[in-house]
Amino acid sequence: MSQALRQRLFDQLDALVLIDPHTHINPHAPAAATLADVLGYHYYTELAHSAGLPKQRIEEPDIEPKEKVRRLVEALAPLDNTIQYSWLMEMAQRLFGFDQERLTIDNWEGLYDAALAKMSQPDWSSQVLRESKLQAVFLTNDFDDPLEGFDTRLYVPCLRTDDLVFHFARTQVRERLQKASGVAVHKVSTLRQALGRLFDRFTRRGARACAISLPPDFAPRRVEPAAAEAALAAVLAGGESAPPERRHELANFMFWTLAEYCAESRLPFDLMIGVNRSVYAAGVYQGQDLYDSRVSLIQYRELFNAFPKVTFPISVLASVTNQELTSYAWIFPNVVTHGHWWYSNTPTFIEHDAAARLEAVPRTKQIGYYSDMYKLEFALPKFAMYKRILAKILAERFVLDRGWSEDRAFDLGRQVLRGNVETVFGV
Amino acid sequence: MSQALRQRLFDQLDALVLIDPHTHINPHAPAAATLADVLGYHYYTELAHSAGLPKQRIEEPDIEPKEKVRRLVEALAPLDNTIQYSWLMEMAQRLFGFDQERLTIDNWEGLYDAALAKMSQPDWSSQVLRESKLQAVFLTNDFDDPLEGFDTRLYVPCLRTDDLVFHFARTQVRERLQKASGVAVHKVSTLRQALGRLFDRFTRRGARACAISLPPDFAPRRVEPAAAEAALAAVLAGGESAPPERRHELANFMFWTLAEYCAESRLPFDLMIGVNRSVYAAGVYQGQDLYDSRVSLIQYRELFNAFPKVTFPISVLASVTNQELTSYAWIFPNVVTHGHWWYSNTPTFIEHDAAARLEAVPRTKQIGYYSDMYKLEFALPKFAMYKRILAKILAERFVLDRGWSEDRAFDLGRQVLRGNVETVFGV
Amino acid sequence: MSQALRQRLFDQLDALVLIDPHTHINPHAPAAATLADVLGYHYYTELAHSAGLPKQRIEEPDIEPKEKVRRLVEALAPLDNTIQYSWLMEMAQRLFGFDQERLTIDNWEGLYDAALAKMSQPDWSSQVLRESKLQAVFLTNDFDDPLEGFDTRLYVPCLRTDDLVFHFARTQVRERLQKASGVAVHKVSTLRQALGRLFDRFTRRGARACAISLPPDFAPRRVEPAAAEAALAAVLAGGESAPPERRHELANFMFWTLAEYCAESRLPFDLMIGVNRSVYAAGVYQGQDLYDSRVSLIQYRELFNAFPKVTFPISVLASVTNQELTSYAWIFPNVVTHGHWWYSNTPTFIEHDAAARLEAVPRTKQIGYYSDMYKLEFALPKFAMYKRILAKILAERFVLDRGWSEDRAFDLGRQVLRGNVETVFGV
Repeated sequence: MSQALRQRLFDQLDALVLIDPHTHINPHAPAAATLADVLGYHYYTELAHSAGLPKQRIEEPDIEPKEKVRRLVEALAPLDNTIQYSWLMEMAQRLFGFDQERLTIDNWEGLYDAALAKMSQPDWSSQVLRESKLQAVFLTNDFDDPLEGFDTRLYVPCLRTDDLVFHFARTQVRERLQKASGVAVHKVSTLRQALGRLFDRFTRRGARACAISLPPDFAPRRVEPAAAEAALAAVLAGGESAPPERRHELANFMFWTLAEYCAESRLPFDLMIGVNRSVYAAGVYQGQDLYDSRVSLIQYRELFNAFPKVTFPISVLASVTNQELTSYAWIFPNVVTHGHWWYSNTPTFIEHDAAARLEAVPRTKQIGYYSDMYKLEFALPKFAMYKRILAKILAERFVLDRGWSEDRAFDLGRQVLRGNVETVFGV
Repeated sequence: MSQALRQRLFDQLDALVLIDPHTHINPHAPAAATLADVLGYHYYTELAHSAGLPKQRIEEPDIEPKEKVRRLVEALAPLDNTIQYSWLMEMAQRLFGFDQERLTIDNWEGLYDAALAKMSQPDWSSQVLRESKLQAVFLTNDFDDPLEGFDTRLYVPCLRTDDLVFHFARTQVRERLQKASGVAVHKVSTLRQALGRLFDRFTRRGARACAISLPPDFAPRRVEPAAAEAALAAVLAGGESAPPERRHELANFMFWTLAEYCAESRLPFDLMIGVNRSVYAAGVYQGQDLYDSRVSLIQYRELFNAFPKVTFPISVLASVTNQELTSYAWIFPNVVTHGHWWYSNTPTFIEHDAAARLEAVPRTKQIGYYSDMYKLEFALPKFAMYKRILAKILAERFVLDRGWSEDRAFDLGRQVLRGNVETVFGV
Repeated sequence: MSQALRQRLFDQLDALVLIDPHTHINPHAPAAATLADVLGYHYYTELAHSAGLPKQRIEEPDIEPKEKVRRLVEALAPLDNTIQYSWLMEMAQRLFGFDQERLTIDNWEGLYDAALAKMSQPDWSSQVLRESKLQAVFLTNDFDDPLEGFDTRLYVPCLRTDDLVFHFARTQVRERLQKASGVAVHKVSTLRQALGRLFDRFTRRGARACAISLPPDFAPRRVEPAAAEAALAAVLAGGESAPPERRHELANFMFWTLAEYCAESRLPFDLMIGVNRSVYAAGVYQGQDLYDSRVSLIQYRELFNAFPKVTFPISVLASVTNQELTSYAWIFPNVVTHGHWWYSNTPTFIEHDAAARLEAVPRTKQIGYYSDMYKLEFALPKFAMYKRILAKILAERFVLDRGWSEDRAFDLGRQVLRGNVETVFGV
């Protein structure tokens, strides 16, 4: 009974047209050009490397796409148990008519060619969007992205601020800010002005969120003006040689100022909490980051209290932080749960984490899922994974355990999958 | 098969007469007077506030109960997915004959009036106890509660000690102690004497436990007499201006002394570990506390070793601490698992946490559940939630996975629900 | 459907011949001599003690085995819910023809005598191995174990190094090292030489791993030669009175040197992370250790990066660390997940932890289970528990949720149960 019920709920959820509230899509090249763009996704390169594929095999310069795919396909067998591999198979089957259970050295060329034929069609990205039932896709834009040359209702800008907060000591970042804002930063006042220009440009171009990823030990706090001025002076003078405590102070000031602009611009501030960068520095591209799960939302206490008008959609990297996220969203009006991020984006963790949220956080304050994808082709299998788990939770924990009607359960699913993206981000 | 099995086990568990080992019931007004006492429970006010209801809408002075209910009902829709909302519906249906799935602006008045009619009956609290199959209810009494005017076999006193340990620097707390004990505290010796008087009065009046809630960073340790004397002197002299390290030292001394009196009085010492108070200071009444889940029972190592004769029924606020609780109860003879507290009192966490305990902690050392309620009406739906989950675990993990008979499974359920409350607390 | 599917998968897994990659078997007395060796396992003594059995009842000198069993049987009733108790029952039923559901004061003597008759047969250990389908068993050998007098293909040596890293300040440990290596340690150079001799002897005798258990606060780091020399001098001079920071420095140096020898000897280095020793010092033998679950694999960042050629099969004591283990094994080529250790070796935690690994870690990098047993009789029920859970995960999460064929699911199960033990440890 439960299997059939799950299937019925899945079918209903799967019929919804969605907005993907967090991706890394390049709006000028949203879909893959060859299968190398698919298999080059860090989930495959890092797992293949972890299972034994030398990094240089896939990162040496000038490998032809087809050759790169061949090398990766040779290394895929040890990953065929993973959910990441299942995304690849579901995509291949649904988008490219692949009819095999596994991708092997004996069958990959057919898929490569079939994919290439599809990807070469001029409207391929539109086809993918349609097949994936995606109405719009949020981007992750560098602060100096010109935001020109694409339809911002389809590809919704989002201001990513990691560089400003954590890498302002780099000359290049400061130069990019000056160029993007037209303001030369010498003092806190000009820094504020420069940031204001960014927010102006982004909001004029339809941005719907500001976003940042944060290391586990970050604990934002308000910085006094004099301290901010001194920190900025030290960083402007010393760059990356400035004393770490000054750089840290400036990071705090910058972060706080961004929150102030979010309040002023009525932009939600997506916080993606808990990543340590380059833990495995010899790893493949984008396959080097890990984490320390000993993080607490108590570190954000002062922030949540200081900005009651800013909505904070929060992603946590580790499932052990999910109960805190659930509880903080239950108490703080401005905290919203946001998807299942990265190392927590696998079924066992999604199931545990989503169930906890669905039963204790107001239904209006949960954004079920985002794909985090770099190429459009991944929305379909990733959302499908989430929808299957959501259907399972609704079937087992709401219809069976709590006696809900299927309609009522579906209605909850629809709200976390689609409705709340509209209300939280104002799209 | 599993559904029918779960139902049969639930029906058996649901027929048991229970003792609720931790509540905040006022024995002089144990049941609700109007539905405002029900909807005013912090679970509803804080969730409604989190979903957008301004605090002043429900906290402005002199709102009539019916008007307060109306305002809350208007704000309930965003919570109708939560398990807390389901408690309200199950209570309304079981105690007041409500036959709707949701409480709305169109149907609330009928419920309000039906509830008022019931609540106005002079024997209403007895009716609730009977309908809820409750034989006795533990209280949470301030240390200066006179404990007079109620049947202490039905409403069992329990000495709550947060104020003594954490707020002794407040003049008012010291004055209350002097008044309650008849002892003027000047030295450690008189402090001990005053505390002894409290324990005398509570045990004479049938108290069955001492209890305290503790912040995540508390790590009790024995304080040397000279240090205790100095800390007490500093606090008596400076009150809340006394140096934090002295206040902290005194808190440790006070806590340790309470444990000594528990040993002497043979009272279990309920530890409720992990809450940070007033994290969201602008929140509604009782809806301001959250937590840092980075707490460990290793902080209690010295305590558990020092008091082998004191039983410590332990509640942890975060589910990530549950495995430690399970392990510590498996090793330490004086550690007992105690219910599912607050932010862990939702089905996903209860299921995971209770299953882990049931399969690894001696069956005599687990207290399944307490309601933590402020009004009697909540015992029925809260215990029902727990009993459904317990039935699910017993059905799936014991009968199906381990081949137990239903009788054997029920017997284990009965012991954690009822039997151990008797043996651990001596009722 | 799911129950029958689980049973079919279990039956297939249960037919596999296994290698147990971590035990504490004494190869000179691998099986129990009487039931006292079984009931004397710390899981029973510590749980019985936790439930009320005084320590001296089972630890007073010169108790006859049969009397010891009688005393423990009297104390077993409060444990009959635990999974540990179920190991005992399954073993009694499968190996000794016991046909009761519980072991009681009324039926224990029959079991005692039946077990004694079996255990007295000269080929009893071979019978147990055969019945348990065990082809080989890894040992845990002290560094000065002569490794003589047993078949090292059946009982595979493994160099345990806790004493060297954490107790080198003890005179006795230093004397044992001198005797075992034939090298008098005066300098870092002779320390290296002595350790090298140990690795030589172990690898010549077929050792397949180096192993160590580590406290939660250990964070290995490379120690500069001069600092190592100074630390060694301080410990040689002061023994256990040497300054803690020097002892700690030496522990780090020793650990790092062991990793260097693992690289040189091509031995995997089993890390068992997270145990605090003697937390309950008054507990029964081997029933005193607990943990602080606030540990992170980020503490091992430098190590994993420094030794890309050393495979680290990693066990974590707390389930809350399992997601980090899963993620680190997903990223680092040299990190492998290893079994379900001690306080995480109960069904609820195994199910959650194994499911997370199976869906996100390359299938070649997961060692499903080890028994950790002291007597051969425990492999059968412990592996049976794991295989049931593995069958459940494969049935529900792979066949039903992901549409895998049963053959494909079994194949994954076989690899984590058996195949990876061969490839990771080279047996």
